[in-house]
Parts: sequence; C-alpha cells; structure tokens
Amino acid sequence: SLKYLYFALLSGPSSFSLRSHTCGELRSHHVGHRVILCGWAQYLRQDLFVILRDFSGLTQVLIPQEESASHLKAVLSELTAESVIKVTGTVRRRPAGQENKEMPTGEIEVITEDVEVFNVCCKLPFEIKDFVKKSESLRMQYRYLDLRSSQMQKNLRLRSQLVMKMREYLCNVQGFVDVETPTLFKRTPGGAKEFVVPSREPGLFFSLPQSPQQFKQLLMVAGIDRYFQVARCYRDEGSKPDRQPEFTQVDIEMSFVDQTGIMSLVEGMLQHSWPAEKGSIKVPFQTMTYEVAMRDYGVDKPDLRFNMKLIDITEIFTVEVEFLRSALSQPGGSIQAICVPSGAKLFTRKDLEELKQTANTQFGQELSVILFKEDGTLKSALKKLLCSSSAEELLNRTQAKPGDLLLMAAGPLHTVRPLLGKLRLRCAELLESCGVSLRDPSAFHFLWVVDFPLFLPKEDEPEQLESAHHPFTAALLEDAHLLYTEPHKVRGQHYDLVLNGCEIGGGSIRIHKASEQLHVLKNILKEDPSLLSHLLEALDSGAPPHGGIALGLDRLTSIIVGADSIRDVIAFPKSFRGRDIMSRAPDTVSEEELKPYHISVRWPTEGGEEGK
Amino acid sequence: SLKYLYFALLSGPSSFSLRSHTCGELRSHHVGHRVILCGWAQYLRQDLFVILRDFSGLTQVLIPQEESASHLKAVLSELTAESVIKVTGTVRRRPAGQENKEMPTGEIEVITEDVEVFNVCCKLPFEIKDFVKKSESLRMQYRYLDLRSSQMQKNLRLRSQLVMKMREYLCNVQGFVDVETPTLFKRTPGGAKEFVVPSREPGLFFSLPQSPQQFKQLLMVAGIDRYFQVARCYRDEGSKPDRQPEFTQVDIEMSFVDQTGIMSLVEGMLQHSWPAEKGSIKVPFQTMTYEVAMRDYGVDKPDLRFNMKLIDITEIFTVEVEFLRSALSQPGGSIQAICVPSGAKLFTRKDLEELKQTANTQFGQELSVILFKEDGTLKSALKKLLCSSSAEELLNRTQAKPGDLLLMAAGPLHTVRPLLGKLRLRCAELLESCGVSLRDPSAFHFLWVVDFPLFLPKEDEPEQLESAHHPFTAALLEDAHLLYTEPHKVRGQHYDLVLNGCEIGGGSIRIHKASEQLHVLKNILKEDPSLLSHLLEALDSGAPPHGGIALGLDRLTSIIVGADSIRDVIAFPKSFRGRDIMSRAPDTVSEEELKPYHISVRWPTEGGEEGK
Repeated sequence: SLKYLYFALLSGPSSFSLRSHTCGELRSHHVGHRVILCGWAQYLRQDLFVILRDFSGLTQVLIPQEESASHLKAVLSELTAESVIKVTGTVRRRPAGQENKEMPTGEIEVITEDVEVFNVCCKLPFEIKDFVKKSESLRMQYRYLDLRSSQMQKNLRLRSQLVMKMREYLCNVQGFVDVETPTLFKRTPGGAKEFVVPSREPGLFFSLPQSPQQFKQLLMVAGIDRYFQVARCYRDEGSKPDRQPEFTQVDIEMSFVDQTGIMSLVEGMLQHSWPAEKGSIKVPFQTMTYEVAMRDYGVDKPDLRFNMKLIDITEIFTVEVEFLRSALSQPGGSIQAICVPSGAKLFTRKDLEELKQTANTQFGQELSVILFKEDGTLKSALKKLLCSSSAEELLNRTQAKPGDLLLMAAGPLHTVRPLLGKLRLRCAELLESCGVSLRDPSAFHFLWVVDFPLFLPKEDEPEQLESAHHPFTAALLEDAHLLYTEPHKVRGQHYDLVLNGCEIGGGSIRIHKASEQLHVLKNILKEDPSLLSHLLEALDSGAPPHGGIALGLDRLTSIIVGADSIRDVIAFPKSFRGRDIMSRAPDTVSEEELKPYHISVRWPTEGGEEGK
Repeated sequence: SLKYLYFALLSGPSSFSLRSHTCGELRSHHVGHRVILCGWAQYLRQDLFVILRDFSGLTQVLIPQEESASHLKAVLSELTAESVIKVTGTVRRRPAGQENKEMPTGEIEVITEDVEVFNVCCKLPFEIKDFVKKSESLRMQYRYLDLRSSQMQKNLRLRSQLVMKMREYLCNVQGFVDVETPTLFKRTPGGAKEFVVPSREPGLFFSLPQSPQQFKQLLMVAGIDRYFQVARCYRDEGSKPDRQPEFTQVDIEMSFVDQTGIMSLVEGMLQHSWPAEKGSIKVPFQTMTYEVAMRDYGVDKPDLRFNMKLIDITEIFTVEVEFLRSALSQPGGSIQAICVPSGAKLFTRKDLEELKQTANTQFGQELSVILFKEDGTLKSALKKLLCSSSAEELLNRTQAKPGDLLLMAAGPLHTVRPLLGKLRLRCAELLESCGVSLRDPSAFHFLWVVDFPLFLPKEDEPEQLESAHHPFTAALLEDAHLLYTEPHKVRGQHYDLVLNGCEIGGGSIRIHKASEQLHVLKNILKEDPSLLSHLLEALDSGAPPHGGIALGLDRLTSIIVGADSIRDVIAFPKSFRGRDIMSRAPDTVSEEELKPYHISVRWPTEGGEEGK
C-alpha cells in the first residue's frame, strides 16, 4: 500500500508534495541529507544509475549493489524509460573525477534506500530527448509526451511568468481591474470569422467573439476606469492554415487617457514583465508613422533590425526609359529600389529567379535586377537603357557597393511598395541562409506605428470606404473636421506595436461621442447603426474619453522564446489544419444530440441530406 | 479642441491619465494643490456645487460665482447628471462647519478654474444612486449604468483582487504554472450539457467543455507538475433558470500529492487571498465525512453556522405506532426529527403548512409536527399515539425546550434525510424572517466533506452504477480492492469544499494507472473506453500520481460580498433565462451565414422548415 512520508513544506515547488526536493535542486551542501525525489526514469546507465527527471532537472540516483538491497536493484534495473518512481535516499558527494560540470546537480548523487514505482511506462512513440526529431503530427498526437521536452517546459513556464508579471504591473502597480467578459455573445454585423453556437431557442445563435471590444468600451462607460483581461478570443479562418481558432490577447482599456498614455503604459508593462534571461528592453520604443513605414519599408510592420530601405529612384529614370515611363504615367506611378548588400556576390541564379517569380505571381509586376559586380561593372537587362550618368546616380542614391544587388520595380506605389517590402524580407532570409548575420536573433526591436488612415477603399468596391481597423477608432484631433468632408483623408488615433517585424498588438483611442460614432457608422461606412444601438445608447449616457490596446500573447511569447510557430507556446494547439489530433476534434455528433439545438447537418453531397 | 495637461505619473490609479488625482483621494493635506479631476457629475447642488464621482469616490467641486468666471458657471450649472467632465482647480479647506464627516473627501472642496465637458449625458433609464431600486431586467438592459453603482464597483474590484492574490499564491509562492487549455474541444461521451460549435467540415463539431478535466490530467502526464488556470467553462442547462451558461473556475492540479496536500494548498490559498476587510479565516478547515454530513444534516453540503441537526428517533417509536412501523419496514426505514428552537412560538400556521407541503410535493412524504408549547404541553396529531415515557424520551433526545418545534418524518433514509435537510434550511430562513439571528451574515464557515461514495446507482436504472462525480476519481486506498468485487461500496478520494452551506469547490485524487481506469470505464460504468483512448494511452506512458480541485469563482465571490445572485459578481451576466438582454443575444443568423458550417435550422413548427 502507498504510505508516504508527508512533507509539510508550506511554500516552494515541493510544498504539499510527496517529495522533499525537486530533481534539479540538490547541490553539495545537501550532502548527508535524507531526501525523497519523485520523477521519471530518463534512462538507466550500466545497471548502476537511474537518471531521474522532473520539470526542474535531472538527478543521478545510485542503484545499490549490495546483496542486502537486491530487491531494490531488481526493481530499479528493470525500469523502463519514462516510468514514474519515488526514491528515498541519502545525498552523497560523487566520487572524485565523476562530477559532471554540465549538470547542475552534477556534484552529488542519491543512494537509494527505498523505491516505489508509481507507474510503469509502456512503449513510447518517441523518446523524450530534446535531440530526437519528431514529426509535427506525432508531436500533436502525443502532445502530453512532447510537452515533457525541456524546450516546451521552458516555453510554458516562461509564458506563465510573463503573464503573471503583466498582471502584477496592471493590477498591483497601476490599479487596473481584471474583468471577465462573456464569450457567448451576439454576432457582430458582418462577422464572417465568428464561430456560431446554436442555442436551445430555435434559430437563435450565440457567437464566439474575436475580441472583447464592445465589452471593454462598455466597461469604460460603466466607470470601471481601468480594465484588463487576459482574454480568450476566437477566429474562424476556415481554410487559412497555421492560424489558431482560439488565441489569447492581453486586453487593456483606460478612461481619461490619450494615445501617449496607452503607449507609455504598454512600454512600462513590457519592461516590467520582460524575462530577465532575455536581457532588458529600452523604453520609450521608437515611433514611426504609417506613411514613413510604407515609404521606407513597404510594409506597416517593418523589421528594423536591418536596413535595406526602399529608395525612390523615379526621377533618375523618367527622362530616358520608355517602358518605365508608361508605368509612371499611372496614378501613383513610381520607381522604387532596394539594395541588397552582397546580394550580387551571394545570390544564385535560382534565388534571383525566385524573387522575380514572387513579383510576378503575387504582385503582377516585373522585377528589374541589377548586379553590381565586384569588378565594378553592372550586369542587368536594363544596362543598355541606362546612360552612365544615370547609372552613377543610381549607385549613388542606393549607396550600392561592389557585390551588391539592386532590385527595382516600377508601377503604382500601392503595388511596388508592398512588393519590395516583401522582397526585402525574403532577401534577408536568403542572406542569412548564406551565412550573413543580418538580424540578431537575441535582439528585440519594438516599434510603434502610428497615424494610420482611418478608412480604406473597399477592395471590391473602391468608391466605398471601410474601417482600416474597426469603426470605433477616433480620428486624429487635427483631422477630425475632415470626417464630414473628406473622410478618406482622415488619420485615426490608432497605434500598432511591432516587434521584430511582427505585429504583436494594436489599439486606439475610441470615439466617445454618440453623434460621431453614428456619423461614422451610418454616413461613412453605410452600416445599419441599429445593430450597435446598445453601444450608441451607452455613449449617450455619459461615456468618458477612453482608449486601449490588445496584445497578441501567443505571438509575443513565441518571439521571446524564439519559436518558429505559436504552436510552441500553446499547451494544446490545434494542428496546421485546425484540428485536435490527440482527441480527434472536431468530431461527429448524432442527430439526436443536435435536436435540442434545432439544427441539422446539410451534407454537401448532392444526394440529399442525411439524418432526416 | 482637446488640449490636455499630461500627468506623467508612473504608477498608481492616475498614472498615464488626464487627471492628477482620483475623486476619492483628496484630503486636507492637499489644500493649496492644483489638481485635475475627471469624472461624472453625480448631482448639482444649489447651483453652487457639482458633486463629481469616479470609481474611487466623490469630490465637491465649487462653481465659481464671480462675474469674471461666468462662462464656467454657465457650463457647470447646465450640466445634466452623469455628464462627464474634467475640472482643473485648486483644493481648499471647506469653510468651518461645512465639513462632511460621512464623506472621505469631506474636509476639502475644489475651486474650479477650468472645465472641459467630455460628454453630455442624455436622459437615463434610472438614476445612478444606490438607493434607487431597479428591476432586474432594467439592470441587465443598461448594465453599463448598473455597474456604476458603488456596490457593483466594489464587487468587481474585490473579485479582481481576490483572483490576483490567488494567482500570487499559486504562481509566486507555490510554483504553479498558469496554463491555458482549449475551449474548442471534442464532445465528452454523454456530455448533454455541452454547447456544440459547428466547424467548417461537414458534420463535424467542436464542443465547449464543462471543465478542463482531461487537459489538466494530461498536463500532469506531461510533467508540468503543478498547473492552475482561472478557466472559463460552459454548461448548457437549457431550461434551468438562474444558471450562467459560462462561468469561471479556479482550476488546480498537482502531481505527487495526496488528498491532504490538495486540501492544505487550498486552505493556504484562501487564507492568503481572503479580502482583509472581510476578516481573517482560520485553517485548517473542519472536515466531515459524507456519511456524517448526511446523517446529521441530511445534505452533503451542510451549513454549520447553526445547529438543528437531524436526530434518529427510530427506536422511540418502533414498538407502539402502527403506521410508522410500516415506514420502518422498508429497506433503510427510519424516523428522523429536527428540533426548531422557538419554532412553536414563532411559526405561523401558514409556515407549518408550507413545510408540510414541501415534504409532500417535493419528497412524497408526510411530515409530523409537534409543538412543544411554552406551557410545557405538546400539541400534535401524533400526541395520542405517544405514551408519556415516549414523549419524554423524544423531548430528551431532541433536547427540545418549551416553545420549540419538532419536525418528524418516517421513511427510507435516502428520502427522509434530504427532506429534513431541506426543511432545516427553510426553518432557518423562517426563523430569521422572525428576527432570530441564527446565521451570522459576516461569518464564513468552511467545511471539507470527504469519503463520498465513488459510484451511485443510476436513477432510471438502479442496478447500473454511475460515477458520483466523474470517472477519473481514485478509490480510497483502503477501499481499492472492492473495485473488483463490490464497487458500490467503494468510497472515492473526492473532497468537496463547502462554504456556509454552498458547495464552492470539489476535487479528487485521480486514477493514474491505465488498467484501473480501463476497469472503471469498461467493467463498472459500462462505457465505451475507446472514446477516452487518448487519456488511457497517456496514463500508460508514465503518468504520475496526481490530483486537483476546481473552485467556483463566481459562487465564492458572491458569498464573500454577500450577493444574492452570482449575477452580482459578473460584469455582463446572462439573464435569468440565459439571454444577453443588452445586446439581444442569442440572435438570428441568416441561412447564408450558416452555410459555411453545413448546418440549417430545424424549425419546430410542423409546417416544414424555413429558409430553404
């Protein structure tokens, strides 16, 4: 029978536990102590040692060799890897020369005096060793084994710590109130990405919201003053791969605040909660307008860890090259270039082909390539079209050096900028794969992007405007009068937080006057304001000026730990295709079980519907 | 235009804000300071004062009466209640005799030097005054106004603090890891109370789980060692009124722990996080077995703040009263009584009728009533059936005093105990409505109830067993051998935490061996084990012994703040009928929007289906 020594430790990682210490904790000052360790048999060595593992590390456990302890030897020697045991024993110093400097507990070992086998491990689909490569689907199917790896243990613990520190900052330091908001909510007008949840009332559905946007604003109207929530959010992107249908955002809203206030708060929070082992971060973060970001980097979330800015070379070419001139005659027509350092030297013909193909297939654009060879000559299909003074001017403007590569595109700004912005990132990857250290993987470069346009033309209906972010964002104060005359020119009090070229958060100062909100919804966006009547009513009953932000916790954590995918910082993520491979979800549900919800399945096959 | 003085406070409730102080903060030592306050005009007094309110309290703002400040006077005097303003001014001591001792800021007032009106409040559906009674549906429809009341502000802030302290204890003191688990999951076998969420794959559904039970156990198999989560959970109870479809539990799981360990941890956590203003709580909490709870209180969650225990009086009657003898001849037949102090004196005939009716309609039982009159005589329909020695014995056993009331019921234990358990609580309410102080509303009595039966007979199929709590609970060590022979006799390592007669949490030590879990699922519960194959596989790949608990945060908070309903500790609860009255959810969704989910509505009317 199980009879435990009960260690009434009142705090720390072994409190209230059957163990006295963790497997990562024993040092030479513990020599002579009697200890109880619990953990997994990582491996056996020469029938002499069991290496015992828990979340905190490894301890070498000595298998007694004396005849009198033959039962212990029998039990321990037959352990399969990953079996779970409890070892009672005494800590001793390892014999001279046998210390392991690589192992934090490498000075000691534990001589077994008693052992209890909690569970014998059967055959495993893969070994729990960090160097053993596993396929993604195997990792997902046996996630409970995958999580035993030291990397996944570290990731989940770092995430927990990060969130805890954010909470301390918001709640204890800044007086924020943690408020939980509903996830069973009303469908947002046009909320195509919202999961529906049938209710027991025929034809009526809840919806899983993409963010607590409406609730956080209502909490400000309610006088909560400062709200935060680590909020579960939902987004049904159906076919899009590598998106998680549920994700977490650190959701913040404040009353009586302006843009600077929110930005400073977030800087303070990130500085406070930044993991010590990842260095410190400097505040305030750099700020850049949307206009400058697009002009210099071709994207609204530039990665500033490397240069390679877009350069406007329109003027160099206008006079001489006929086919470029036609591109320039379009509205917003322009010629832009980036200079890839050592690109001429390092990129293969195949690399160049790939870049051209990307331009062609994704942007419908021709890409012109100029190799500035190390002997100082230029190699390009364009070469004969360039007079020598223009060539010189081009090299001068782009500050190209021998060995560099120039990529050029001509066309409307709204095409060539995103194109070169994309190629800039691809070139960085190519350079890095050639061994150039371009982006320091341990560097964290934060950037605020501000002064976004408030409205954008609808893609399929360009004379109609839609919100660049959402309809609740207030206009920049100096642009507010344009709301009633030239709404397309209005910039919003919106701010995006970018880390190493990834958008990790976004927020805005909100409209707090009902009349302005109604104007935006009805006159500019041509939406039915009655769908948001509760919000409009709320704004009319004493709404304070307010604003906030939401940070994507999964993405932020993945960048901090250097993970390739957000799946590496989520305990039980959905697979690439949005499924839970371990439990096989989503799954079928019987017609009987669907009855209370008054729905039935419409099978897509033409032969009628099943289950009727 | 809005031009703010920006107060770069780096911490506290006014950091990063347009205000310099909150409305509850100014004292006499601030006299002479120039301050900026933001808030709601609670009311105007004699055109002389605006009482300005924010979450922290009230400040009296003086409307200047000088001719030179006539514009300020004009703006302030015309303010509607609940308009939102910013006041810049200087703090001065109130004139002698005008101090308000009831008001924390009552020593001072602020002389207005500048004012900005952020928002004018239109007509309100009700006044924001604590003493104004509002209907429940009006409160729900205008929740953002209801939350402005000082009570709701207090409730939400206390909840936030409570959770923060729990997190500090678990994460910072005890080394727990905060792990988020999925809410889009696979349907639990027989999970009739789980909302379904259609996926974009025809016929496949996610399900919103009632708790993270499977995930928390898998995290233990994964070596996380100590997990917690403040978890959103879902329960679709359809027609049951006053249940929230989404609720929050503090979810905890530990490896290498026994029942005592979990109980001590929870005691430590509650002691650590208990709001200072609610007094302190003593640990360890009292423990009682299920058997004793049922025997003495007729319920598994007894309210121990008052006595009135069930008393077995079977033996007194067996010999003489024929009609009782027939009740006793049933299996488990018994006669039980409770003595209601002063019940004979205080209860009306109507009260007694109500008690009898409850017994009859809810339990199918006759209730016998004996009034022990203050003159020492007994009044009862039973009286003539009682010989004087029996009567004496009855008064002796029940320790009844003149003026007390005895309630008696005869029948099988499994009926009379719950019946008297229920009447005991009802009598407590009746006594309190007569002015007897029985239960101290400021007392918090915690109780652990342990040694529950592991299985119970199914209601509709009594020879078949079902789990008393869930199929993952381990047997008491001393009963484990009975799993294979007499499973109905097995007690489980389950523990419920009861506070003032409400179950606020429950947990167990789990089965950690696959063979035992398989036996329970397959042989005892007759369930299809393949539906839990991932859990069985996990137990077979090195599962540590583990256990945990889940505390109902909504209920716990509501008891602490003394709220009648959990709706008073949830920012945006669903109504009594499970609807969001403010936004009108659930709501209709067009057939077009349902198409990607391959479902259609089955309208319950017979005339065919709509929307095809």
